[in-house]
Amino acid sequence: MGIFDYVSDDIGNGSSHKMVVPITVFVAILCLCLVIGHLLEENRWVNESITAIIIGLISGTIILLISKGKSSHILRFNEELFFIYLLPPIIFNAGFQVKKKQFFHNFLTIMSFGVIGVFISSSIITAGSWWLFPKFNFNGLTVRDYLGIGAIFSSTDTVCTLQVLHQDETPLLYSLVFGEGVVNDATSVVLFNAVQKIDVDRFNGWSAFHVFLDFLYLFSTSTALGVSAGLLTSYILRGLYFGRHSSVREVSLMLLMAYLSYMLAELFSLSGILTVFFAGILMSHYAWHNVTDSSRITTRHAFEAMSFIAETFIFLYVGMDALDIEKWKMSKQSLAGSVWTSMGIYGTVLLLIAIGRAAFVFPLSAFSNFLNRHATRAPSITFKHQIVIWWAGLMRGAVSIALAFKQFTYSGVTVDPVHAVMVTTTVIVVLFSTLVFGFLTKPLINYLLPHNDNTRRNIDREPTISKETLPLLSFDESASTNLLRAKDSLSMLFQRPVYTIHSYWRRFDDTYMRPIFGGPARSEPRNEDSG
Amino acid sequence: MGIFDYVSDDIGNGSSHKMVVPITVFVAILCLCLVIGHLLEENRWVNESITAIIIGLISGTIILLISKGKSSHILRFNEELFFIYLLPPIIFNAGFQVKKKQFFHNFLTIMSFGVIGVFISSSIITAGSWWLFPKFNFNGLTVRDYLGIGAIFSSTDTVCTLQVLHQDETPLLYSLVFGEGVVNDATSVVLFNAVQKIDVDRFNGWSAFHVFLDFLYLFSTSTALGVSAGLLTSYILRGLYFGRHSSVREVSLMLLMAYLSYMLAELFSLSGILTVFFAGILMSHYAWHNVTDSSRITTRHAFEAMSFIAETFIFLYVGMDALDIEKWKMSKQSLAGSVWTSMGIYGTVLLLIAIGRAAFVFPLSAFSNFLNRHATRAPSITFKHQIVIWWAGLMRGAVSIALAFKQFTYSGVTVDPVHAVMVTTTVIVVLFSTLVFGFLTKPLINYLLPHNDNTRRNIDREPTISKETLPLLSFDESASTNLLRAKDSLSMLFQRPVYTIHSYWRRFDDTYMRPIFGGPARSEPRNEDSG
Repeated sequence: MGIFDYVSDDIGNGSSHKMVVPITVFVAILCLCLVIGHLLEENRWVNESITAIIIGLISGTIILLISKGKSSHILRFNEELFFIYLLPPIIFNAGFQVKKKQFFHNFLTIMSFGVIGVFISSSIITAGSWWLFPKFNFNGLTVRDYLGIGAIFSSTDTVCTLQVLHQDETPLLYSLVFGEGVVNDATSVVLFNAVQKIDVDRFNGWSAFHVFLDFLYLFSTSTALGVSAGLLTSYILRGLYFGRHSSVREVSLMLLMAYLSYMLAELFSLSGILTVFFAGILMSHYAWHNVTDSSRITTRHAFEAMSFIAETFIFLYVGMDALDIEKWKMSKQSLAGSVWTSMGIYGTVLLLIAIGRAAFVFPLSAFSNFLNRHATRAPSITFKHQIVIWWAGLMRGAVSIALAFKQFTYSGVTVDPVHAVMVTTTVIVVLFSTLVFGFLTKPLINYLLPHNDNTRRNIDREPTISKETLPLLSFDESASTNLLRAKDSLSMLFQRPVYTIHSYWRRFDDTYMRPIFGGPARSEPRNEDSG
Repeated sequence: MGIFDYVSDDIGNGSSHKMVVPITVFVAILCLCLVIGHLLEENRWVNESITAIIIGLISGTIILLISKGKSSHILRFNEELFFIYLLPPIIFNAGFQVKKKQFFHNFLTIMSFGVIGVFISSSIITAGSWWLFPKFNFNGLTVRDYLGIGAIFSSTDTVCTLQVLHQDETPLLYSLVFGEGVVNDATSVVLFNAVQKIDVDRFNGWSAFHVFLDFLYLFSTSTALGVSAGLLTSYILRGLYFGRHSSVREVSLMLLMAYLSYMLAELFSLSGILTVFFAGILMSHYAWHNVTDSSRITTRHAFEAMSFIAETFIFLYVGMDALDIEKWKMSKQSLAGSVWTSMGIYGTVLLLIAIGRAAFVFPLSAFSNFLNRHATRAPSITFKHQIVIWWAGLMRGAVSIALAFKQFTYSGVTVDPVHAVMVTTTVIVVLFSTLVFGFLTKPLINYLLPHNDNTRRNIDREPTISKETLPLLSFDESASTNLLRAKDSLSMLFQRPVYTIHSYWRRFDDTYMRPIFGGPARSEPRNEDSG
């Protein structure tokens, strides 16, 4: 019993060798991916995900030929493997490496994209597919399936775009795209789970409200759990000062506590993704400052490496699985063999994704600009930026695949032809969006945001603004100035709500949190974002 | 289907939650272990292994009480989990962190302890148990079982002693104990596998020779595979210069290539342990010099953390499993319920371990001293040192447990009472030796090697000797001096064989290997051992 179910039939004999072949092949291909990905890195049209998917497709073809058309993959997809072993390191690393300054500066915008956006996109995709699928003579999906489809195709994969955007050149854009990507992953999984619990026979306004309440409950409790885990870890690391003996313990403790928070969340049927994301943020904000220098370097790179391996693994698998003959046969059976019907389904989904995304990116950006209208600091989200944000979220990735397998298969096996169509559709949408949209991202961004235009201005503007807000954050201020400040701040809250909240948080952080949980003292230059 | 088989019966329903409970509990206990182990670290009588075993015993008791005597562990031991996921990081890290200078200086002695020693110890334990077990009315073991027992109880666990010895104070002793520990692990697994293949019905001198040939074949091919994997990784890292882009790729590649070598070895039925050990040595000798500074720090600490977690996991499990009611019941059944009989078996095994170890440590040390009699550099292994080496190898650990499960259970379940006795005996021997011998190690070493006695002399002597051998290793020497040197060296080979071989190796390494595979140039001070 390994983490994978080897497809071969000889399960009985040579049990110790059952897992060895698939793992060996997979690790070998992973190594190949690493080297080829490195060689192609200069060519920034082809990113990591695209490389992995293409190598997966090639390996799938080879395995298909070797097994004489029997199977194209050596590992059966297992949503448990995905949710228990592969996703946690990716999301934890996302939280750990997130540029907190930018992330919290744009917190409200990111949250509105990541949460409200998913709701809007999901509703549009659900409604659209409900309306359009039967027009292609494709029936047989239940209400729950349609609701699931909404969540499945609302989870974005922004890795492609991030590899093209430059953190230093377009900090606002980078932070929005990255932040939305992570929050979006969490939200779609939470929404997916909330939707599963709906009593579809009596679906009405009240149950829609119930989904929303359920969602809010999941969101807040998961966040609270992650924050607690992060704070506890920081407190232990600070209190016991592990570094006295070894950084091994520090690294291990951070890793294990993060994983524990994820598993606890899953145990209580919360969203492990959100939990581990916030555990990551809190750990990098507090715990990271309590460890030795070598632990700091190690955690930065080791967590990133773990995440990198898990991500490559997933894309590789998606490439391999795309050639799964059985699913294609079954899928054809349901679509009466017509190529145009299947094309219609894929096209519909892609169109709905694009519409669903447009339906929230442009209005919410406008709203965000409206909220920040008085802020001298916040560069507003220009229309060109909005197009980039919209485009960045068109790619679909591993979370979509995992959710589709969860909804439409049983341990990776489909018996229902209608479900097989949905699985193949998801695979095609992921492949198409990653490969085609991914390829086009670089030229699009180059066209919209030429390197020496508005991008450089953002950098130049940054230092002057920092000076302006810096006095707000001073540590040793008397009570009277505090009161004065509070009055000022209150009036500021209406003028530029986002930054006022942020500056309140920083003051609270410096006064109460950092002394307990760790972090650089106020007098030091704040370089929590530097690796 | 996770990496663990959850003991609970409800496999069908709630499949995604099947693995969550045991993993959560285990990770939580691991965190606890980490913190408690840290708190107890000042107290050097209690080491990591002892802490983990005791916490495992306590957790086992609690689980036993909660489950009302049904089960004491939440995970069923799985030798595949052990050999595929837990052992590789431990051994790879051992190879990666080994102090190569000391290791290669004492190479012949370490190898004779680790290889010849295991053969001697194994023969004595096999013969002794064959002769003594029936005297306790304990019958039913086959010839293969007895041969297996020899290998099972020949694998040492030297973690305890290493935590007490000081690398700087007693470099020779530390290197011998550490080196033997790793080689011994590999040898006993290889021997165990070689023994499995014997045709026991026609066992004679020829088949004993055949075991030896088989062993040699496994040993050399496994080493060659590991060396190749290490060299290939170094070559790739040097050739492509990954650091240009990120250290994530470097870390991932080293990790994946090491794991690939292990899995390839297992695939070809070689010894993965040896392979991954040599891959680790080669990577730290060459590849480690080709990566960025942050990758160097990250690999050092991340690999150590992985190994640390895996080790703690194993000891924790051993503690939990010690209370497995079913095995004890079955074991009692076979031993006719007599406490004295079981005590007799345990005592016999412990006695045989001590005799088997004494039978090779003292003669081989004398032989090593004889070989080094002319070497001014080599501090001879004093009688006190020999006692420490003998004692250090009395502890039995995870490898013994894993081999015992492999020999006497089927996927962790025993149905044969005789086999159950052997499993419980192994558990008891591991517990007793780790706890009792482990506790006594510190006082013993303090008594034999007081801190300011002969230990300091070794350090003082080191620099003067280094200067003496340094001219041998100069890089840019003409052919004529080479010839002269060769004559000198040849006569030296008889006077001090070990160091001559070593100096030849260093010259070869500097001239041919390092330019291709990487490493510091000769002109730089050699600090490959510094982290």
